[in-house]
Amino acid sequence: MVVVMKASSTNEQIEKVINKLRSFDLDIHLSQGTTRTIIGGVGDPKEKEMIMETIEVMDGVEKVVAIVNPYKLASREFKQEDTVIKIGDLCIGGNEIIVMAGPCAVENEQQIIETAEAVKRAGAKILRGGAFKPRTSPYSFQGLGEDGLKLLAKAREKTGLKIVTELMDLQHIKIVNEYSDIIQIGARNMQNFTLLKAVGKLQKPVLLKRGMSATVKELLMAAEYIMSEGNHQVILCERGIRTFEDATRNTLDLSIVPVIKEISHLPIIIDPSHATGKWNLVKPMTKAAIASGADGLIIEVHPNPLDAVSDGPQSLKFNNFNDLMNESRLVANAIGRNIAGDSDDVS
Amino acid sequence: MVVVMKASSTNEQIEKVINKLRSFDLDIHLSQGTTRTIIGGVGDPKEKEMIMETIEVMDGVEKVVAIVNPYKLASREFKQEDTVIKIGDLCIGGNEIIVMAGPCAVENEQQIIETAEAVKRAGAKILRGGAFKPRTSPYSFQGLGEDGLKLLAKAREKTGLKIVTELMDLQHIKIVNEYSDIIQIGARNMQNFTLLKAVGKLQKPVLLKRGMSATVKELLMAAEYIMSEGNHQVILCERGIRTFEDATRNTLDLSIVPVIKEISHLPIIIDPSHATGKWNLVKPMTKAAIASGADGLIIEVHPNPLDAVSDGPQSLKFNNFNDLMNESRLVANAIGRNIAGDSDDVS
Amino acid sequence: MVVVMKASSTNEQIEKVINKLRSFDLDIHLSQGTTRTIIGGVGDPKEKEMIMETIEVMDGVEKVVAIVNPYKLASREFKQEDTVIKIGDLCIGGNEIIVMAGPCAVENEQQIIETAEAVKRAGAKILRGGAFKPRTSPYSFQGLGEDGLKLLAKAREKTGLKIVTELMDLQHIKIVNEYSDIIQIGARNMQNFTLLKAVGKLQKPVLLKRGMSATVKELLMAAEYIMSEGNHQVILCERGIRTFEDATRNTLDLSIVPVIKEISHLPIIIDPSHATGKWNLVKPMTKAAIASGADGLIIEVHPNPLDAVSDGPQSLKFNNFNDLMNESRLVANAIGRNIAGDSDDVS
Amino acid sequence: MVVVMKASSTNEQIEKVINKLRSFDLDIHLSQGTTRTIIGGVGDPKEKEMIMETIEVMDGVEKVVAIVNPYKLASREFKQEDTVIKIGDLCIGGNEIIVMAGPCAVENEQQIIETAEAVKRAGAKILRGGAFKPRTSPYSFQGLGEDGLKLLAKAREKTGLKIVTELMDLQHIKIVNEYSDIIQIGARNMQNFTLLKAVGKLQKPVLLKRGMSATVKELLMAAEYIMSEGNHQVILCERGIRTFEDATRNTLDLSIVPVIKEISHLPIIIDPSHATGKWNLVKPMTKAAIASGADGLIIEVHPNPLDAVSDGPQSLKFNNFNDLMNESRLVANAIGRNIAGDSDDVS
Repeated sequence: MVVVMKASSTNEQIEKVINKLRSFDLDIHLSQGTTRTIIGGVGDPKEKEMIMETIEVMDGVEKVVAIVNPYKLASREFKQEDTVIKIGDLCIGGNEIIVMAGPCAVENEQQIIETAEAVKRAGAKILRGGAFKPRTSPYSFQGLGEDGLKLLAKAREKTGLKIVTELMDLQHIKIVNEYSDIIQIGARNMQNFTLLKAVGKLQKPVLLKRGMSATVKELLMAAEYIMSEGNHQVILCERGIRTFEDATRNTLDLSIVPVIKEISHLPIIIDPSHATGKWNLVKPMTKAAIASGADGLIIEVHPNPLDAVSDGPQSLKFNNFNDLMNESRLVANAIGRNIAGDSDDVS
Repeated sequence: MVVVMKASSTNEQIEKVINKLRSFDLDIHLSQGTTRTIIGGVGDPKEKEMIMETIEVMDGVEKVVAIVNPYKLASREFKQEDTVIKIGDLCIGGNEIIVMAGPCAVENEQQIIETAEAVKRAGAKILRGGAFKPRTSPYSFQGLGEDGLKLLAKAREKTGLKIVTELMDLQHIKIVNEYSDIIQIGARNMQNFTLLKAVGKLQKPVLLKRGMSATVKELLMAAEYIMSEGNHQVILCERGIRTFEDATRNTLDLSIVPVIKEISHLPIIIDPSHATGKWNLVKPMTKAAIASGADGLIIEVHPNPLDAVSDGPQSLKFNNFNDLMNESRLVANAIGRNIAGDSDDVS
Repeated sequence: MVVVMKASSTNEQIEKVINKLRSFDLDIHLSQGTTRTIIGGVGDPKEKEMIMETIEVMDGVEKVVAIVNPYKLASREFKQEDTVIKIGDLCIGGNEIIVMAGPCAVENEQQIIETAEAVKRAGAKILRGGAFKPRTSPYSFQGLGEDGLKLLAKAREKTGLKIVTELMDLQHIKIVNEYSDIIQIGARNMQNFTLLKAVGKLQKPVLLKRGMSATVKELLMAAEYIMSEGNHQVILCERGIRTFEDATRNTLDLSIVPVIKEISHLPIIIDPSHATGKWNLVKPMTKAAIASGADGLIIEVHPNPLDAVSDGPQSLKFNNFNDLMNESRLVANAIGRNIAGDSDDVS
Repeated sequence: MVVVMKASSTNEQIEKVINKLRSFDLDIHLSQGTTRTIIGGVGDPKEKEMIMETIEVMDGVEKVVAIVNPYKLASREFKQEDTVIKIGDLCIGGNEIIVMAGPCAVENEQQIIETAEAVKRAGAKILRGGAFKPRTSPYSFQGLGEDGLKLLAKAREKTGLKIVTELMDLQHIKIVNEYSDIIQIGARNMQNFTLLKAVGKLQKPVLLKRGMSATVKELLMAAEYIMSEGNHQVILCERGIRTFEDATRNTLDLSIVPVIKEISHLPIIIDPSHATGKWNLVKPMTKAAIASGADGLIIEVHPNPLDAVSDGPQSLKFNNFNDLMNESRLVANAIGRNIAGDSDDVS
């Protein structure tokens, strides 16, 4: 870390900072400029955050600047080659772009089976569907619970699709782990550290959604929580951040894709449905996500959005999803990647 | 709700929207303007959110505008008079401004007892201190756990101060409930709906912190979650929101105080320590919070911020906290309120 | 507009609001629900904003909701077909995606001529380059002024490229109009209403950049300022908005592209250089912009970014720009559009 | 500045960075840590921004960190004691808190004279009122222009109040300078650098409003533009920033007050009217502003907000303004400051 002293700092204050840094086993590099003294503390201590806070409080200190990023296991420096996550014969993070699709919430057998069959026909490889739903109103439908998980399993049996579904709290970790192929940690739980540690102890891929106002660094620190427990199968997911703009539900931050590719080895996928909140924006933003380099997509599809119990406005009908897949394939090809699946008409 | 149809909408589309609204038992008020048809759906259905989403998807609809706010129990309309929460002989939400103070984390017996005695002398009524700590890095100190709770209880015994401490997840609800007088739900858990429902079933006051990017409406919906389970003793807490400004850790949104006072009956307190992240900004923002009408404060105090295991930069020393209390009393008096406690020198 | 009365509003208050609305020649539609009275004010008055503010102040009023958008000339309702702007034989807003490229600032003859030749070879149709530079520091290079304009004109002569350059204030409108083919209004001037009206009186295409924290609605209102003076040749430009994320200079909001396509007829282009602030993010975000449906791009290119007087970090070298163009062509083709130009190696 | 090299950087790359820094006359301090090489560039060059950008582009560089702030004249380091701006017998930035009040726009003689008399009676020292109005819609009232300035002058004659009014562009600088005692630069023009330089050449106090999404640093850089031309009489003004919260028009950032007091010597005032957008929030936020340490306030007052041509919802009636002043006096006294004026009833 680099400690910048105030212009008005005294020799005694500088001395004290140096001694404090040394007490944490850091080597010192002193640089006395025309207006400022700068003290470098060199080393790789564990409690970096605490040390920086401690120094920041000392008299005469103007600011403390971190040199090394706080994440390790999630960083490109730790692991040069891209992480490819295997689920059966599926690879996430490889050349193929993986599409996850399905309804916001599992509602009943017909709905989920029909949707599974339709999205499979269109080329999706993974079925999404919520059994436990985080809803902003306590008066809204909260999901079918374990019954929903069983219906997802039935759809998997019928179609061969893999299953991704959200885990909302510790009490359901066992059953969600049992029924799912990928466990989703929702945006609201990105900093639910207990939950992160718990899924870190599983041997199952985790889809980690970026919090509504989380920075890229915080997203990687959340991944670090999971990885530090032993589970390195983390798929990052951008789903829109909160800004002042209200023309869309959230602001989709696609720049995060090349940023993550540079600083981390983890795969990253995009959720254009929650990001925009409007079904007619999903197709263009899906194509943009692919062109930006995303490794996959997670898209809301419903047999009849008009009857959806939640997120109807952002759900695609089967035929629109089919069109999206066909057009997306062309964009994927244009950047040298591919999306599996035939392109039969499903309408 | 009010449904605004597109200028290009057809009579058939209008008819369909009307029929859909009627299917939810809503009365219809039709208004045909020069450029737009507007359809009012009158009634008080439970699944408001879902109905609005359903209508939004229909052909010819431009937008759907909510008329009534989604929160009920938390609203001023539901309860005209201010909620005053009693904890023993203490009242939160009354004329007296209540100060909660203490270290970020409980570190050891000497630290917490000393701090408790110092903040009590200065006029604080409630001792804060974390036993379970949400930390952005998995490599940082995570709190003493139950041992920390026991030390808080010891400090309560010695000083008579009440205890507020954070509950991070369901698995600790029993012991946190046992040791605390107020259960804190942290900003990162403001939309941990399972946790909200669980504390909603207790008979204990809940300090609910606003999420980093939560709107006032979402904060009240989180309170609604707790209240809808039967526990109406909710204390709201503003602790800074995330904006582009980086001169402070967060941006303290004091306007929320009079806004909440207008639309809700719940008490609201301010956390100037987390909001600013810098101890020297805590005093002016405390005085501003009082002048804005806040019912209380929660402030970080540490015997020696230099040695704090977390949040040192925003913690006040005993003598600074004493000064803060003395100056704050004058501001409280200027607006016709008061802060308890003598003003002995504690240095 | 729709006026929502408070639950506690009296008949007299409702009556007064109705009379006030009638005084502005609005027709009244009254709707009395179970908990709220709603008053529709129907008509198309000119001073809509003022009327809404007036009503909002009246006793008993909870809120006033606008039904019709405030922009007219810029709206898709006003003009169904896409606006295509012709500059000589160039069309902006048609099927061809137009690329504008060049240095942040014009520095000297060699720099601008070399760059013009290189970007032309790679397929750019328009040369960008600042003669007047808005710099956050008064101590930074502020541009060559009229000399810069003359160098741009020389580059146009040599290459046949069109010229886009920024107009910073009224005093230079005559010379900027004389030398440029498109006048750029920078993000910081998006709400410089005097300047907007002034370029609205010219017969020249205007490139209007979105302000750093401007909503889509405000961007269209800025366009409306220009159009209301008679100049309908407005090209919108997204260049990143300001959010809490600091991994990129700004957050590129690509969702604005399909949003604008839905509600406006104006062409929209993307500036990935200023949005990201980092040259290595420019290529992926360019491809994403094309895939999202953008009509063009404006990209910073410099013979030697290391020696650039401003914005070096986000400028592409010639060979990188050439690669970008080649890869972009493939994406454009994948969505059924094209980018002109050969793809010779320019390295 | 401090240059952090990538872990993978080569000796040759390090050498090149050092040579480049030396070419700008900077002294070098090299620090080779376990994972990173850090290069300090010591000196005080003028084109700091450009040098940092240049280095950032070089191979092997991870990031460049500024050590010294970019503003000089506006900094507390440059001038230790508070700047007190004198306008006749008035002092802004001294112990007395100065209140500026008046309508958003000057509408007619009766309105401005009546308001001037009322706010004077209540204790205001300066009359505000817009003659040139920046309006988001080209169809809204744009101000009376020079006639408005003349009416302000008449009000000054009658009451002895000083005048503050907005300058929107260069073409009116002469007449605005002639009629006003303080020239206001609006939030939308905070980075209109031409305008800043022009008022920097005058001998008149400038009220500089913070841009809607400007950081504290950018606000000080805007002040620096004015000061670097010779005019050091700059009054900073916070008027709310743009965030995701929509319960208020903007989010009033009061923490900026103690932040500015620490890093700058310039006085800072608060505009609670534009910040909140609602008259009933103005009083509590005024008191909070005073308690936070603000040097003054600028408040919208109108004889009849219902008839105001703009900003009615945020304007106070005379009696409410009088109450505000009386209550504010008590808060000012509580922090050892005062607000001039008697407290006669003006209703």
